[in-house]
Amino acid sequence: MGRITARRSVVRLTVAADEGTDEGDREQRRADTLAVEEPLEIRIAGEPLAVTMRTPGNDVELAAGFLVSEGVIHHGAQFRSAIHCGGPGMGGSGTGGPLAGATENTYNVLDVALAPGVAGPEPDRSRNFYTTSSCGICGTASIDAVETVSAYDVAADPMTVDAAAILRLPERLREHQAVFEKTGGLHAAALFDAATGELLVVREDVGRHNAVDKVVGWAVLNDRLPLRGTVLQVSGRASFELVQKAVMAGIPMLSAVSAPSSLAVELAARSGLTLVGFVRGTSMNVYTRDDRIRRAAAPIERAGMRHPEPVGSA
Amino acid sequence: MGRITARRSVVRLTVAADEGTDEGDREQRRADTLAVEEPLEIRIAGEPLAVTMRTPGNDVELAAGFLVSEGVIHHGAQFRSAIHCGGPGMGGSGTGGPLAGATENTYNVLDVALAPGVAGPEPDRSRNFYTTSSCGICGTASIDAVETVSAYDVAADPMTVDAAAILRLPERLREHQAVFEKTGGLHAAALFDAATGELLVVREDVGRHNAVDKVVGWAVLNDRLPLRGTVLQVSGRASFELVQKAVMAGIPMLSAVSAPSSLAVELAARSGLTLVGFVRGTSMNVYTRDDRIRRAAAPIERAGMRHPEPVGSA
Repeated sequence: MGRITARRSVVRLTVAADEGTDEGDREQRRADTLAVEEPLEIRIAGEPLAVTMRTPGNDVELAAGFLVSEGVIHHGAQFRSAIHCGGPGMGGSGTGGPLAGATENTYNVLDVALAPGVAGPEPDRSRNFYTTSSCGICGTASIDAVETVSAYDVAADPMTVDAAAILRLPERLREHQAVFEKTGGLHAAALFDAATGELLVVREDVGRHNAVDKVVGWAVLNDRLPLRGTVLQVSGRASFELVQKAVMAGIPMLSAVSAPSSLAVELAARSGLTLVGFVRGTSMNVYTRDDRIRRAAAPIERAGMRHPEPVGSA
Repeated sequence: MGRITARRSVVRLTVAADEGTDEGDREQRRADTLAVEEPLEIRIAGEPLAVTMRTPGNDVELAAGFLVSEGVIHHGAQFRSAIHCGGPGMGGSGTGGPLAGATENTYNVLDVALAPGVAGPEPDRSRNFYTTSSCGICGTASIDAVETVSAYDVAADPMTVDAAAILRLPERLREHQAVFEKTGGLHAAALFDAATGELLVVREDVGRHNAVDKVVGWAVLNDRLPLRGTVLQVSGRASFELVQKAVMAGIPMLSAVSAPSSLAVELAARSGLTLVGFVRGTSMNVYTRDDRIRRAAAPIERAGMRHPEPVGSA
């Protein structure tokens, strides 16, 4: 199933640097590797819930993570099963639209069965969801409903991380991004254990929100929620939705390679999540709860800390 | 109204490069400039239609462009008026949520009046739209409905552009990005006239789709649709939704600094839109309809082209 890259013929044009030279523009027709973007329709017990533009693969995790972000499930047993629907008419094949070719494999509809007793999304949220390749929660027609209430108190998580360890996360994420190097078109999200530094899981997607949903879905399906003591590292910017997804999964720290938005910082501050941005080279910006970031003191200070009262203590 | 940046206290940490030095990690508390992200609820005649996470400013253009992308309007007269709703309870203030502070200005609800006789969005699309900071069309619960039918035939647009001119567009876009330099957190979209090279409009937003909607909204409100003979330059990647928005506005060429997705290329091919990606330095990738990109031939070739049959033509 999950084709995550596609080959496509492309004309590579290189323009002559100087118009006075004997060189004209050069062109080369060649095959290029693209990140695959295809729609996935998520259904609950046969009822359409959401359509997301995603990179195929880890679809079950994506659906499970989306349901965590929506506040529908909190542990793996609540997610009974998921099947890719097949057969004619499924997945939009036969429409003649641009999606027809992409959906011939009929792997673009995923039907989720929740465990008995698990309530589905609220009725007014259960229709007309549409999540694009960068879309988080959808289906909300009023601003008041944008914030979903988390079951977890990330503010109370006592975890801490060395500043130097955080600086290494973007590179470690990059090393595990299998597809990005080929296509330049994928976002990634990775979850690290703050105490051991272990990389727990990494996922890629054309949509940054989908990459995070896949990570959270992996966690809920493995009964790891809440994700206490973890750091979520993302390849791009930190939006409101990414902070919300982290909080909904009980993740106490979100680290982004690029900038956060104002609302991402506001929600992080209110939720007690540590939000780090611009993690590049030897520096980073800590927007909220910087008490969780351990700094290395200069040696003389370190000595002082080890022996707070070296004189007169005998 | 449109606060597009916000100041926020941040701790800047710089980690000592070498643990053997006398240096400890350095920290500096300072004010940082962030791109503002706030929700905007778009209503049609008082009925909630969509919520988008956007950068405030040009909200009327954003709403108008969104309606073009949805196939609801095609020219400015169809969009009668738009007013920001005020008063208690509007804009989510009073919820106590993270949005409360952000929405105190009550500028986060925009009510649009369509001209008499203009049909609103289809009923099954009229509820529960939620567009995030990177979300295009929303409210679609089936894959078949993802493709919206355009009123314009971009395939028939005879426009052409010099390859060298395209290479200059990202830099010209950047020069006009007022906010990005301060925050690092904004996408931008700009529209150029292919014949004259004139920059027609540039808009920024935390969401790449919103930036494009604002550009298209500017155009429809100025009765410039279809946007024949124009090039849309975007600061990031080219997703399916961006290609769709271009096609819906009659834009025949989309140029992206980064990678397109597979579905973006598929829709461009079907629609006859010229899709260019990885526009960097002296080169670019042309994915579809490269016949619109004029190459400079080497001088000897140019001479040959000017006189295709120099021998025996007398």
